[in-house]
Amino acid sequence: MTNRWLLPENISDVLPSEAFKVEFLRATLLGVFKSYGYQLIIPPVLEYLESLLTAGGSDMDIQIFKLVDQLSGRTMGLRTDMTTQVARIDAHILNQSGVSRLCYAGTTLQTKVVPGIFSREQLQIGAEIYGHQGIEADIEILSLMLDALNCANVGTITLDLSHAGILKALLENVAMSADDIQSLYGALQAKNKKLLQALCANWPEANFTTLISLLDLSGEAFSVIERARKALPNTSAFQDAMSALEQFCQTIHQIRPETQLNIDLADLDGFQYHTGLMCAAYVADYPVAIARGGRYDQVGSAFGRKRPATGFSLDLFALSNVSKLEFVLKAIQAPWDNRHDLRQAISELRNSGEVVIQLFPNELNSESIYEFDRKLVLVDDQWKVVSI
Amino acid sequence: MTNRWLLPENISDVLPSEAFKVEFLRATLLGVFKSYGYQLIIPPVLEYLESLLTAGGSDMDIQIFKLVDQLSGRTMGLRTDMTTQVARIDAHILNQSGVSRLCYAGTTLQTKVVPGIFSREQLQIGAEIYGHQGIEADIEILSLMLDALNCANVGTITLDLSHAGILKALLENVAMSADDIQSLYGALQAKNKKLLQALCANWPEANFTTLISLLDLSGEAFSVIERARKALPNTSAFQDAMSALEQFCQTIHQIRPETQLNIDLADLDGFQYHTGLMCAAYVADYPVAIARGGRYDQVGSAFGRKRPATGFSLDLFALSNVSKLEFVLKAIQAPWDNRHDLRQAISELRNSGEVVIQLFPNELNSESIYEFDRKLVLVDDQWKVVSI
Repeated sequence: MTNRWLLPENISDVLPSEAFKVEFLRATLLGVFKSYGYQLIIPPVLEYLESLLTAGGSDMDIQIFKLVDQLSGRTMGLRTDMTTQVARIDAHILNQSGVSRLCYAGTTLQTKVVPGIFSREQLQIGAEIYGHQGIEADIEILSLMLDALNCANVGTITLDLSHAGILKALLENVAMSADDIQSLYGALQAKNKKLLQALCANWPEANFTTLISLLDLSGEAFSVIERARKALPNTSAFQDAMSALEQFCQTIHQIRPETQLNIDLADLDGFQYHTGLMCAAYVADYPVAIARGGRYDQVGSAFGRKRPATGFSLDLFALSNVSKLEFVLKAIQAPWDNRHDLRQAISELRNSGEVVIQLFPNELNSESIYEFDRKLVLVDDQWKVVSI
Repeated sequence: MTNRWLLPENISDVLPSEAFKVEFLRATLLGVFKSYGYQLIIPPVLEYLESLLTAGGSDMDIQIFKLVDQLSGRTMGLRTDMTTQVARIDAHILNQSGVSRLCYAGTTLQTKVVPGIFSREQLQIGAEIYGHQGIEADIEILSLMLDALNCANVGTITLDLSHAGILKALLENVAMSADDIQSLYGALQAKNKKLLQALCANWPEANFTTLISLLDLSGEAFSVIERARKALPNTSAFQDAMSALEQFCQTIHQIRPETQLNIDLADLDGFQYHTGLMCAAYVADYPVAIARGGRYDQVGSAFGRKRPATGFSLDLFALSNVSKLEFVLKAIQAPWDNRHDLRQAISELRNSGEVVIQLFPNELNSESIYEFDRKLVLVDDQWKVVSI
């Protein structure tokens, strides 16, 4: 009873100074998506568990808060991500034959803090393209992601790129359990050669040599592409992946020359989910990716309609945290009176974008994030705004 | 497996044509709140159950989705309403001594469909004033509510007003269990005299006569006030409530003469929660209140800080549903090319508020809520917007 105001661990209130920034970023990003022709959808916060568990595997299951639907008796879950929902909507609700550009913004929740994510509640925002196989869709999504980050004034952006086709090509001729593949991914990211040797004991030597070569294929994008062309087998699976990465990097370099481009072929975060280009954006003083994107052409298959798909998402709470935007909210003070001319004057100021606070009788200039810098006063029977 | 795309009952996706309207209303209403000097807060979607169960009693308990917090082992709930959270923040986080004007917008969920609410998920938006006892706070909240509804173009608004002080005065000298009070409220709303007789069998006759007189005290506001002045006992509790209603109606009539004002003294929906003026807004063709507001000075007491409080809230999904606003989204078609001058032209158009869709190679003018009415073409080596 005495601590009813305590919140659960890693769950928090967002207070006015931060909340206005989050809201500004939300509105601005949705505005950018709209200016590119993306259609907004609002999927529900909860669904039947099976509908949410189509893409991510067992990792995702333990991250989903579960609850019982009293109407059906079935188990529902709170979404941890909105991509699966967008795939469902593309497949079954919109069911368009051409290209669909979709965007969304909403709450996602997780049972536990995942590494690098500090809150169990996020405000996820993102954009996705369904129905276009070509690299143009990846480029448009990446441009949108960079525009979105630039709106938040986050300073220099570093992109870490990879391609899910590389590991997929390596795994094609070897038998490996899903658990071992999961471990393989962790070992690659940690660049742990001993663990890789243990996991790949029965691999053909050529495949294993290629796998180990991935550990060194990281760094500035164009130099990695040059080295990878030589180090990787000269088969279409590997070389197509490298060509896609090269074309992608060249275009990004051309249209956003200020962006730092890195490639890490051993960093395949989410590779089970992704099917092509993968991208993570980093900014100074933030230890984990601030935005992630990539291609996941399989995502709609659980809903019976596999279409090419690529997209990106980010957490608005995290973005607000790294944003260097500063807000100062100035307000005009007005007296409390129901005079028609005063109400008229206040209404006009408010409609023109000003903040007007009518002080109640005995209300003092109290603590608030709005700073009074002007006031509305009656001068010669006219309401005038004067400096304080 | 075959019906993974099915959603739970009374849970739905909001598709583009509706989603853009919901988003427009959300942004517009938050803009109105800001122009009045309200501070935005973003409380979490879930909290410990005890924190949510402070105001509503047992009715609210069964409406809350419950889940287990793996980190603490404690039961958490999904909020059904944000008022309690705002009270917690006012009491313990902001802890301001003066007047606090706060606003919010976020998802609320309910285990079951409540009468008149068609979805178990709402997008609740609202505004509240803490720390001012005078009727000015009620008037400001009501003005804000009417401004918010007018932004949505909902046609004529009818306000149903009541005052929680009347039933409170009646109950002061009688002993009644919480369950019976709950039944009493239902019987009053249903104007069920037989049930009232059964429930109030041991009431003093004067109290019961007053109670029954409430059943007839409904209709056009000013005529009800006149009749109630005579029908209700001449004690300060009753007459103060009537004075507050009268002052309130006079002011609303003065500042928003187009609003229909009704009073129903037997309609005390939420009276356990409310402590003073109560108000519900109705619009044509919608069977339940589209917005509700009122005074609830007790709301912060569970968090150790009882301050005067008044506010209103509405569901943006419902508001969008009754809104007569129509959106036509026009777009400019542009070719896919990485030419610097084309990118420049597109970027300028997008920044000026236009929607520009760059068609991918082989992308046709596909189904979308954006209608192409212009296209960007190269004329004499200059990119020009021409009609289609």
